[in-house]
Amino acid sequence: MDRLKVKIIEEGRVSGPSILKVDSFLNHQLDVSFLNEVGKEFKEVFKDKEVTKILTAEVSGIAIAAIAGLHFQVPVVFAKKSQSLNLDHDTYEGEVYSFTKEQHFKIRLSKRYLSKEDKVLILDDFLANGEALKGLRQIVETSGATLQGAGVVIEKGFQHGGDKLREEGMDIRALATIMSMEEGKITFR
Amino acid sequence: MDRLKVKIIEEGRVSGPSILKVDSFLNHQLDVSFLNEVGKEFKEVFKDKEVTKILTAEVSGIAIAAIAGLHFQVPVVFAKKSQSLNLDHDTYEGEVYSFTKEQHFKIRLSKRYLSKEDKVLILDDFLANGEALKGLRQIVETSGATLQGAGVVIEKGFQHGGDKLREEGMDIRALATIMSMEEGKITFR
Repeated sequence: MDRLKVKIIEEGRVSGPSILKVDSFLNHQLDVSFLNEVGKEFKEVFKDKEVTKILTAEVSGIAIAAIAGLHFQVPVVFAKKSQSLNLDHDTYEGEVYSFTKEQHFKIRLSKRYLSKEDKVLILDDFLANGEALKGLRQIVETSGATLQGAGVVIEKGFQHGGDKLREEGMDIRALATIMSMEEGKITFR
Repeated sequence: MDRLKVKIIEEGRVSGPSILKVDSFLNHQLDVSFLNEVGKEFKEVFKDKEVTKILTAEVSGIAIAAIAGLHFQVPVVFAKKSQSLNLDHDTYEGEVYSFTKEQHFKIRLSKRYLSKEDKVLILDDFLANGEALKGLRQIVETSGATLQGAGVVIEKGFQHGGDKLREEGMDIRALATIMSMEEGKITFR
Protein backbone atom coordinates (compact mmCIF):
# COMPACT_ATOMS: atom_id res chain seq x y z
CA MET A 1 0.00 0.00 0.00
CA ASP A 2 1.91 3.00 -1.32
CA ARG A 3 0.41 5.66 0.93
CA LEU A 4 1.35 3.54 3.95
CA LYS A 5 4.97 3.27 2.81
CA VAL A 6 5.13 7.04 2.35
CA LYS A 7 3.72 7.59 5.84
CA ILE A 8 6.20 5.13 7.36
CA ILE A 9 9.11 6.90 5.66
CA GLU A 10 7.88 10.41 6.46
CA GLU A 11 6.51 9.90 9.97
CA GLY A 12 8.08 6.70 11.31
CA ARG A 13 10.88 6.94 13.83
CA VAL A 14 13.35 4.09 14.01
CA SER A 15 14.73 3.35 17.45
CA GLY A 16 17.47 0.73 17.63
CA PRO A 17 17.57 -2.28 15.35
CA SER A 18 13.94 -3.32 15.63
CA ILE A 19 11.64 -0.64 17.06
CA LEU A 20 9.62 1.47 14.64
CA LYS A 21 7.43 4.16 16.17
CA VAL A 22 4.45 5.06 14.06
CA ASP A 23 2.51 6.65 16.87
CA SER A 24 1.71 9.76 14.83
CA PHE A 25 -0.88 7.83 12.82
CA LEU A 26 -1.30 4.21 13.92
CA ASN A 27 -1.21 3.54 17.65
CA HIS A 28 -1.24 6.66 19.84
CA GLN A 29 -2.44 9.43 17.61
CA LEU A 30 -4.79 7.94 15.01
CA ASP A 31 -4.97 9.39 11.52
CA VAL A 32 -8.53 8.17 11.11
CA SER A 33 -8.96 9.18 7.48
CA PHE A 34 -5.82 7.16 6.70
CA LEU A 35 -7.09 4.25 8.84
CA ASN A 36 -10.22 4.38 6.73
CA GLU A 37 -8.03 3.79 3.66
CA VAL A 38 -6.34 0.93 5.53
CA GLY A 39 -9.75 -0.61 6.29
CA LYS A 40 -10.77 -0.31 2.65
CA GLU A 41 -7.51 -1.96 1.59
CA PHE A 42 -8.00 -4.90 3.97
CA LYS A 43 -11.48 -5.40 2.50
CA GLU A 44 -9.98 -5.41 -1.00
CA VAL A 45 -7.17 -7.80 -0.01
CA PHE A 46 -9.58 -10.27 1.59
CA LYS A 47 -12.45 -9.75 -0.84
CA ASP A 48 -12.61 -13.46 -1.72
CA LYS A 49 -12.95 -14.58 1.90
CA GLU A 50 -16.22 -14.85 3.75
CA VAL A 51 -15.82 -13.04 7.06
CA THR A 52 -18.45 -12.94 9.83
CA LYS A 53 -16.28 -11.46 12.55
CA ILE A 54 -13.06 -9.49 12.92
CA LEU A 55 -10.83 -10.36 15.87
CA THR A 56 -8.02 -8.22 17.28
CA ALA A 57 -6.21 -7.72 20.59
CA GLU A 58 -6.18 -4.69 22.81
CA VAL A 59 -4.81 -2.05 22.66
CA SER A 60 -3.32 -1.05 19.37
CA GLY A 61 -5.41 -3.27 17.11
CA ILE A 62 -8.72 -1.80 18.20
CA ALA A 63 -8.93 1.36 16.09
CA ILE A 64 -7.72 -0.46 12.97
CA ALA A 65 -10.17 -3.32 13.44
CA ALA A 66 -13.10 -1.03 14.30
CA ILE A 67 -12.70 1.10 11.20
CA ALA A 68 -12.04 -1.96 9.01
CA GLY A 69 -15.25 -3.43 10.45
CA LEU A 70 -17.19 -0.63 8.77
CA HIS A 71 -15.92 -1.85 5.39
CA PHE A 72 -16.54 -5.55 6.11
CA GLN A 73 -19.88 -4.74 7.78
CA VAL A 74 -19.31 -7.32 10.49
CA PRO A 75 -18.91 -7.05 14.28
CA VAL A 76 -15.44 -6.66 15.75
CA VAL A 77 -14.25 -8.35 18.93
CA PHE A 78 -11.07 -7.59 20.82
CA ALA A 79 -9.29 -9.93 23.21
CA LYS A 80 -8.44 -8.37 26.55
CA LYS A 81 -5.09 -8.43 28.28
CA SER A 82 -6.31 -8.17 31.85
CA GLN A 83 -9.06 -9.79 33.84
CA SER A 84 -11.47 -7.01 34.63
CA LEU A 85 -14.79 -6.68 36.41
CA ASN A 86 -16.46 -6.24 33.07
CA LEU A 87 -15.15 -9.43 31.49
CA ASP A 88 -17.15 -12.61 31.77
CA HIS A 89 -15.45 -15.46 33.60
CA ASP A 90 -16.18 -17.88 30.80
CA THR A 91 -13.54 -16.98 28.23
CA TYR A 92 -11.45 -18.39 25.43
CA GLU A 93 -7.77 -17.87 26.22
CA GLY A 94 -4.69 -17.38 24.14
CA GLU A 95 -1.13 -17.25 25.38
CA VAL A 96 1.23 -14.54 24.19
CA TYR A 97 4.94 -14.25 24.95
CA SER A 98 6.17 -10.71 25.42
CA PHE A 99 9.78 -10.31 24.34
CA THR A 100 10.01 -6.87 25.93
CA LYS A 101 8.67 -8.05 29.30
CA GLU A 102 10.20 -11.55 28.96
CA GLN A 103 7.07 -13.27 30.21
CA HIS A 104 3.93 -14.98 29.02
CA PHE A 105 0.56 -13.36 29.46
CA LYS A 106 -2.98 -14.36 28.58
CA ILE A 107 -5.43 -12.68 26.26
CA ARG A 108 -9.09 -13.48 26.79
CA LEU A 109 -12.30 -13.28 24.85
CA SER A 110 -15.77 -13.89 26.28
CA LYS A 111 -17.25 -17.08 24.87
CA ARG A 112 -20.42 -15.13 24.10
CA TYR A 113 -18.78 -13.41 21.15
CA LEU A 114 -17.20 -16.18 19.10
CA SER A 115 -18.76 -19.48 18.06
CA LYS A 116 -17.96 -22.36 15.77
CA GLU A 117 -20.17 -20.87 13.05
CA ASP A 118 -17.93 -17.78 12.79
CA LYS A 119 -15.50 -17.15 9.97
CA VAL A 120 -12.82 -14.98 11.49
CA LEU A 121 -10.39 -12.46 10.11
CA ILE A 122 -7.65 -11.41 12.53
CA LEU A 123 -6.38 -7.84 12.17
CA ASP A 124 -3.51 -6.14 14.00
CA ASP A 125 -1.15 -3.21 13.68
CA PHE A 126 2.23 -5.01 13.68
CA LEU A 127 3.55 -8.46 12.96
CA ALA A 128 7.04 -8.99 14.37
CA ASN A 129 7.68 -12.26 16.21
CA GLY A 130 4.15 -13.41 15.57
CA GLU A 131 3.27 -13.84 19.24
CA ALA A 132 0.05 -11.80 19.14
CA LEU A 133 -1.21 -13.63 16.04
CA LYS A 134 -0.42 -16.97 17.70
CA GLY A 135 -2.44 -16.04 20.79
CA LEU A 136 -5.33 -14.84 18.65
CA ARG A 137 -5.20 -18.00 16.51
CA GLN A 138 -5.38 -20.05 19.70
CA ILE A 139 -8.60 -18.23 20.66
CA VAL A 140 -10.12 -18.93 17.23
CA GLU A 141 -9.11 -22.60 17.36
CA THR A 142 -10.46 -23.07 20.89
CA SER A 143 -13.79 -21.56 19.85
CA GLY A 144 -14.12 -23.94 16.91
CA ALA A 145 -14.53 -21.01 14.52
CA THR A 146 -12.83 -20.98 11.11
CA LEU A 147 -9.77 -18.77 10.73
CA GLN A 148 -9.96 -17.14 7.30
CA GLY A 149 -6.72 -15.19 7.50
CA ALA A 150 -4.85 -12.41 9.21
CA GLY A 151 -4.16 -8.88 8.04
CA VAL A 152 -1.46 -6.68 9.55
CA VAL A 153 -0.67 -3.11 8.70
CA ILE A 154 3.11 -3.43 9.05
CA GLU A 155 5.13 -6.63 9.03
CA LYS A 156 8.70 -6.53 10.27
CA GLY A 157 9.89 -9.24 7.90
CA PHE A 158 13.35 -9.34 9.46
CA GLN A 159 11.84 -10.72 12.70
CA HIS A 160 10.44 -13.73 10.81
CA GLY A 161 7.28 -14.34 12.89
CA GLY A 162 5.22 -14.22 9.70
CA ASP A 163 7.37 -16.81 7.94
CA LYS A 164 6.72 -19.39 10.64
CA LEU A 165 2.99 -18.75 10.80
CA ARG A 166 2.65 -18.94 7.00
CA GLU A 167 4.50 -22.28 7.03
CA GLU A 168 1.90 -23.44 9.53
CA GLY A 169 -0.81 -22.50 7.03
CA MET A 170 -1.98 -19.09 8.18
CA ASP A 171 -2.99 -16.81 5.30
CA ILE A 172 -1.30 -13.57 6.36
CA ARG A 173 -1.31 -10.37 4.31
CA ALA A 174 0.74 -7.32 5.29
CA LEU A 175 0.02 -3.91 3.81
CA ALA A 176 3.73 -3.06 4.10
CA THR A 177 6.65 -5.37 4.84
CA ILE A 178 9.88 -3.95 6.20
CA MET A 179 12.95 -6.03 5.39
CA SER A 180 15.52 -3.93 7.21
CA MET A 181 15.82 -0.87 9.44
CA GLU A 182 19.61 -0.88 9.75
CA GLU A 183 21.16 2.45 10.62
CA GLY A 184 17.70 3.97 10.68
CA LYS A 185 17.12 3.33 6.97
CA ILE A 186 13.85 1.57 6.23
CA THR A 187 13.88 -0.92 3.34
CA PHE A 188 10.63 -2.44 2.16
CA ARG A 189 10.20 -5.83 0.48
CA MET B 1 -30.41 8.63 21.43
CA ASP B 2 -33.34 6.23 21.09
CA ARG B 3 -31.51 3.38 19.37
CA LEU B 4 -28.93 3.43 22.17
CA LYS B 5 -31.63 3.16 24.85
CA VAL B 6 -33.17 0.21 23.02
CA LYS B 7 -29.79 -1.51 22.80
CA ILE B 8 -29.10 -0.92 26.50
CA ILE B 9 -32.48 -2.40 27.44
CA GLU B 10 -32.21 -5.34 25.04
CA GLU B 11 -28.51 -6.20 25.38
CA GLY B 12 -27.33 -4.64 28.64
CA ARG B 13 -26.78 -6.85 31.65
CA VAL B 14 -27.08 -5.26 35.07
CA SER B 15 -24.78 -6.69 37.73
CA GLY B 16 -25.30 -5.40 41.26
CA PRO B 17 -26.33 -1.83 41.99
CA SER B 18 -23.94 -0.05 39.64
CA ILE B 19 -22.38 -2.30 36.99
CA LEU B 20 -23.90 -2.33 33.52
CA LYS B 21 -22.33 -4.67 30.99
CA VAL B 22 -22.77 -3.55 27.41
CA ASP B 23 -19.95 -5.65 26.05
CA SER B 24 -22.09 -7.03 23.22
CA PHE B 25 -21.81 -3.73 21.35
CA LEU B 26 -19.68 -1.12 23.12
CA ASN B 27 -16.53 -2.38 24.78
CA HIS B 28 -15.64 -6.01 24.02
CA GLN B 29 -17.62 -6.89 20.95
CA LEU B 30 -18.10 -3.74 18.88
CA ASP B 31 -21.25 -3.24 16.84
CA VAL B 32 -19.41 -1.00 14.41
CA SER B 33 -22.41 0.02 12.34
CA PHE B 34 -24.06 1.15 15.57
CA LEU B 35 -20.85 2.92 16.66
CA ASN B 36 -20.99 4.72 13.33
CA GLU B 37 -24.44 6.05 14.35
CA VAL B 38 -22.95 7.05 17.72
CA GLY B 39 -20.16 8.95 15.98
CA LYS B 40 -22.65 10.73 13.74
CA GLU B 41 -24.72 11.66 16.81
CA PHE B 42 -21.69 13.11 18.62
CA LYS B 43 -20.96 15.22 15.55
CA GLU B 44 -24.56 16.48 15.57
CA VAL B 45 -24.51 17.18 19.32
CA PHE B 46 -21.27 19.16 19.10
CA LYS B 47 -21.90 20.72 15.69
CA ASP B 48 -21.48 24.27 17.03
CA LYS B 49 -18.05 23.56 18.53
CA GLU B 50 -14.80 23.86 16.65
CA VAL B 51 -12.84 20.66 17.23
CA THR B 52 -9.30 20.02 16.01
CA LYS B 53 -8.62 16.85 17.99
CA ILE B 54 -10.54 14.12 19.79
CA LEU B 55 -9.03 12.78 23.02
CA THR B 56 -9.94 9.54 24.75
CA ALA B 57 -8.34 7.01 27.10
CA GLU B 58 -7.44 3.41 26.45
CA VAL B 59 -9.03 0.89 26.25
CA SER B 60 -12.75 1.23 25.87
CA GLY B 61 -12.85 4.76 24.46
CA ILE B 62 -10.71 3.94 21.44
CA ALA B 63 -13.22 2.40 19.04
CA ILE B 64 -15.83 5.06 19.82
CA ALA B 65 -13.38 7.91 19.36
CA ALA B 66 -11.84 6.44 16.19
CA ILE B 67 -15.17 6.04 14.42
CA ALA B 68 -16.39 9.43 15.68
CA GLY B 69 -13.17 10.90 14.28
CA LEU B 70 -14.32 9.92 10.80
CA HIS B 71 -17.36 12.18 11.25
CA PHE B 72 -15.41 15.09 12.75
CA GLN B 73 -12.58 14.58 10.22
CA VAL B 74 -9.94 15.27 12.86
CA PRO B 75 -7.15 13.12 14.36
CA VAL B 76 -7.86 11.10 17.48
CA VAL B 77 -5.39 10.64 20.34
CA PHE B 78 -5.70 8.20 23.19
CA ALA B 79 -4.03 8.49 26.58
CA LYS B 80 -2.20 5.35 27.67
CA LYS B 81 -2.48 3.63 31.00
CA SER B 82 0.95 2.07 31.10
CA GLN B 83 4.42 3.24 30.33
CA SER B 84 5.50 1.27 27.32
CA LEU B 85 8.53 1.09 25.09
CA ASN B 86 6.57 2.80 22.38
CA LEU B 87 5.54 5.83 24.42
CA ASP B 88 7.70 8.93 24.40
CA HIS B 89 9.14 9.92 27.76
CA ASP B 90 7.93 13.47 27.36
CA THR B 91 4.24 13.18 28.21
CA TYR B 92 1.31 15.08 29.62
CA GLU B 93 -0.06 13.23 32.61
CA GLY B 94 -3.48 12.94 34.17
CA GLU B 95 -4.32 11.20 37.41
CA VAL B 96 -7.27 8.84 37.63
CA TYR B 97 -8.64 7.17 40.75
CA SER B 98 -9.90 3.64 40.21
CA PHE B 99 -12.74 2.80 42.60
CA THR B 100 -12.56 -0.89 41.70
CA LYS B 101 -8.81 -1.12 42.32
CA GLU B 102 -8.85 1.51 45.10
CA GLN B 103 -5.76 3.23 43.81
CA HIS B 104 -4.64 6.12 41.67
CA PHE B 105 -3.00 5.54 38.31
CA LYS B 106 -1.63 7.81 35.62
CA ILE B 107 -2.74 8.21 32.05
CA ARG B 108 -0.21 9.66 29.64
CA LEU B 109 -0.19 11.37 26.28
CA SER B 110 2.92 12.17 24.26
CA LYS B 111 3.47 15.95 24.10
CA ARG B 112 3.88 15.59 20.35
CA TYR B 113 0.17 15.09 19.85
CA LEU B 114 -1.49 17.92 21.74
CA SER B 115 -0.59 21.60 21.70
CA LYS B 116 -2.03 24.87 22.94
CA GLU B 117 -3.52 25.55 19.50
CA ASP B 118 -5.75 22.47 19.76
CA LYS B 119 -9.47 22.59 20.46
CA VAL B 120 -10.23 19.30 22.11
CA LEU B 121 -13.33 17.16 22.40
CA ILE B 122 -13.07 14.33 24.95
CA LEU B 123 -15.03 11.16 24.15
CA ASP B 124 -15.52 8.08 26.30
CA ASP B 125 -17.83 5.11 26.70
CA PHE B 126 -19.03 5.62 30.29
CA LEU B 127 -19.30 8.48 32.76
CA ALA B 128 -19.80 7.24 36.31
CA ASN B 129 -17.71 8.88 39.03
CA GLY B 130 -16.08 11.16 36.50
CA GLU B 131 -12.55 10.01 37.23
CA ALA B 132 -11.56 9.30 33.63
CA LEU B 133 -12.89 12.66 32.43
CA LYS B 134 -10.99 14.42 35.22
CA GLY B 135 -7.75 12.74 34.20
CA LEU B 136 -8.33 13.60 30.55
CA ARG B 137 -9.21 17.21 31.44
CA GLN B 138 -5.94 17.43 33.36
CA ILE B 139 -4.05 16.39 30.22
CA VAL B 140 -5.84 19.04 28.15
CA GLU B 141 -5.19 21.75 30.75
CA THR B 142 -1.53 20.85 31.09
CA SER B 143 -1.08 21.05 27.33
CA GLY B 144 -2.61 24.53 27.19
CA ALA B 145 -5.18 23.36 24.64
CA THR B 146 -8.82 24.46 24.84
CA LEU B 147 -11.33 21.93 26.12
CA GLN B 148 -14.48 22.26 24.04
CA GLY B 149 -16.53 19.62 25.78
CA ALA B 150 -16.91 15.96 26.55
CA GLY B 151 -19.22 13.38 25.04
CA VAL B 152 -20.01 10.06 26.68
CA VAL B 153 -22.13 7.27 25.33
CA ILE B 154 -23.68 6.28 28.67
CA GLU B 155 -23.81 8.38 31.83
CA LYS B 156 -24.68 6.67 35.08
CA GLY B 157 -26.42 9.71 36.53
CA PHE B 158 -26.89 8.08 39.93
CA GLN B 159 -23.12 8.10 40.48
CA HIS B 160 -23.05 11.90 40.12
CA GLY B 161 -19.59 12.32 38.57
CA GLY B 162 -21.13 14.32 35.75
CA ASP B 163 -22.91 16.71 38.12
CA LYS B 164 -19.66 17.77 39.75
CA LEU B 165 -17.80 18.21 36.48
CA ARG B 166 -20.65 20.28 34.97
CA GLU B 167 -20.60 22.51 38.08
CA GLU B 168 -16.91 23.02 37.38
CA GLY B 169 -17.82 24.21 33.89
CA MET B 170 -17.27 21.17 31.70
CA ASP B 171 -19.76 20.93 28.82
CA ILE B 172 -20.70 17.25 29.00
CA ARG B 173 -23.27 15.58 26.78
CA ALA B 174 -24.40 12.00 27.32
CA LEU B 175 -26.21 10.08 24.59
CA ALA B 176 -28.13 8.17 27.29
CA THR B 177 -28.35 8.89 31.02
CA ILE B 178 -29.32 6.14 33.42
CA MET B 179 -30.93 7.37 36.63
CA SER B 180 -31.40 4.02 38.33
CA MET B 181 -30.63 0.33 37.88
CA GLU B 182 -32.31 -0.91 41.05
CA GLU B 183 -33.38 -4.54 41.02
CA GLY B 184 -31.99 -4.83 37.50
CA LYS B 185 -34.51 -2.36 36.05
CA ILE B 186 -32.92 0.40 34.00
CA THR B 187 -34.56 3.83 34.23
CA PHE B 188 -33.39 6.60 31.91
CA ARG B 189 -33.57 10.34 32.61
